[in-house]
Amino acid sequence: MSLLVTGSIGIDTVESPSGKVQDALGGSSVYFAYAAAFFSPVRLVGVIGDDCPVGFLKPLEDNPQIDMTGLEVRHGAKTFRWHGRYHEDINRRETIAVELNVLAEAAPSIPEAFLDSRYVFLANTHPDLQAEMLSRLTGAKLVVADTMDIWIKSEREGLLRLLGEIDGLVLNDSEAKLLTEEQDVVAAGLRIAAMVHGFVVIKKGEHGSLLFADGGIFACPAYPAVRVVDPTGAGDSFAGAMMGHLAAAGGADEGTLRRAIAYGTVTASFALEDFSLNRFFEMRRQDIDQRLREFEELTRF
Amino acid sequence: MSLLVTGSIGIDTVESPSGKVQDALGGSSVYFAYAAAFFSPVRLVGVIGDDCPVGFLKPLEDNPQIDMTGLEVRHGAKTFRWHGRYHEDINRRETIAVELNVLAEAAPSIPEAFLDSRYVFLANTHPDLQAEMLSRLTGAKLVVADTMDIWIKSEREGLLRLLGEIDGLVLNDSEAKLLTEEQDVVAAGLRIAAMVHGFVVIKKGEHGSLLFADGGIFACPAYPAVRVVDPTGAGDSFAGAMMGHLAAAGGADEGTLRRAIAYGTVTASFALEDFSLNRFFEMRRQDIDQRLREFEELTRF
Repeated sequence: MSLLVTGSIGIDTVESPSGKVQDALGGSSVYFAYAAAFFSPVRLVGVIGDDCPVGFLKPLEDNPQIDMTGLEVRHGAKTFRWHGRYHEDINRRETIAVELNVLAEAAPSIPEAFLDSRYVFLANTHPDLQAEMLSRLTGAKLVVADTMDIWIKSEREGLLRLLGEIDGLVLNDSEAKLLTEEQDVVAAGLRIAAMVHGFVVIKKGEHGSLLFADGGIFACPAYPAVRVVDPTGAGDSFAGAMMGHLAAAGGADEGTLRRAIAYGTVTASFALEDFSLNRFFEMRRQDIDQRLREFEELTRF
Repeated sequence: MSLLVTGSIGIDTVESPSGKVQDALGGSSVYFAYAAAFFSPVRLVGVIGDDCPVGFLKPLEDNPQIDMTGLEVRHGAKTFRWHGRYHEDINRRETIAVELNVLAEAAPSIPEAFLDSRYVFLANTHPDLQAEMLSRLTGAKLVVADTMDIWIKSEREGLLRLLGEIDGLVLNDSEAKLLTEEQDVVAAGLRIAAMVHGFVVIKKGEHGSLLFADGGIFACPAYPAVRVVDPTGAGDSFAGAMMGHLAAAGGADEGTLRRAIAYGTVTASFALEDFSLNRFFEMRRQDIDQRLREFEELTRF
């Protein structure tokens, strides 16, 4: 079924113990769309400025699974930029510089042909913007959102309103604790699942993830990655593969959700093996299925 | 097959957001033995001082699976004491006071009848003491040890010697990184598995555990515990159930090890539901098997 993502498109500069890339392809909707495209066609809605280098988005345009009709190039605006640095302990990162640029302006418009999208992922941005996009997507059947600490702190009211209108939330463990003021991630997950009247996936990075749905819990370890070059976009890739599998399966019962999370886990494990989306460019769907079989093997007891 | 544990017996005072216990039963070998006894007979070797209150070890003495022949009551010596406090974030704890007392003296002697023990667990203590105990246990077939940061820092040489003589090591993630000077827990696990010519289990507390054996990895999530009252002894209970299952199964091939770790995970999840060993006193083996079935269910995808 039709899957739509709206989120950031960014020009990233990333430093890690493995090296550095400058002005590389990034942004939440970009990682999401490329990961989802291994599973399902995906419609991307996002905005860049006219400063964006020619050919910057070519890898997305060349992917027949990604419909770029919803890309807006805004004249006189500048593209979102992020510069981050990872430490020797690759789970620690600092933001060196961030320029919201066009992300601080009006939301991109959604093409008429996209308004019937059944599966919708609202990648992390201001909750009022997420709600505005959602209000236009009248055909949506399953809506999942991501969020982050700055909105939980500064836009709690708008975020809580949004949570009442969606079916699923994906966020990381520190954000889940911040949102609920619970110290324990399990207690936090159970509370958020009640808030969204649906499911919540709490991402714990190198420690895997937890799904809370219908009162039940699914505990999913991480794929034990040895070669971590750049963790940027791993969470968005996780969400992309998860939503791609749900859209392909045409449902979100608990069994399908668990499988979707396992696919998210292994797809994200590829993303961090190289800078930007580079690892994705050299792999195929079969590589994901092969790693999923390994993952099944190394979690069996 | 016969299982022996040697480690501390302690008088614990524990504060947590759920309350406080004073002068309660504790110590690594105590948690280990009680957890192991759900699976297999277990021989305990440990030493207390004659200050220990009468009846303090009665729960162990009353357990028909625990052989207390190896308990030494040393005259004129004082029992090991530990006082700890857990914070609102239950994964953070501080040691308020520690009195090594009799633990700083000579090791307890091992009864003649115990020298043929086939399965041996050397709970955390000075690595030279662990090596001395091991040298007397000439019938040992599978030897597993625990250690902690202070020995890794101050007794690295002795610890590395010990690692060359054992079949398995159980330690937590920060200790594994400290021992190998690796930043990544997977890289650390692979290196330690090579050091011990056997297996290593890295405990990650609320994030589960990782087994490294024969080049393979087993990723085991934690049981999603909601009611954490007192995490003291959870790691020792994990090791006790793990070794108890191995001794009962009479082997340690990878499949048996994985099952042993799953049993360790669920048994530890009971330990933290009450102070001291109180939760263990009111439960039976069936409760562990029931929770193992739940655990299988909530990790399946």
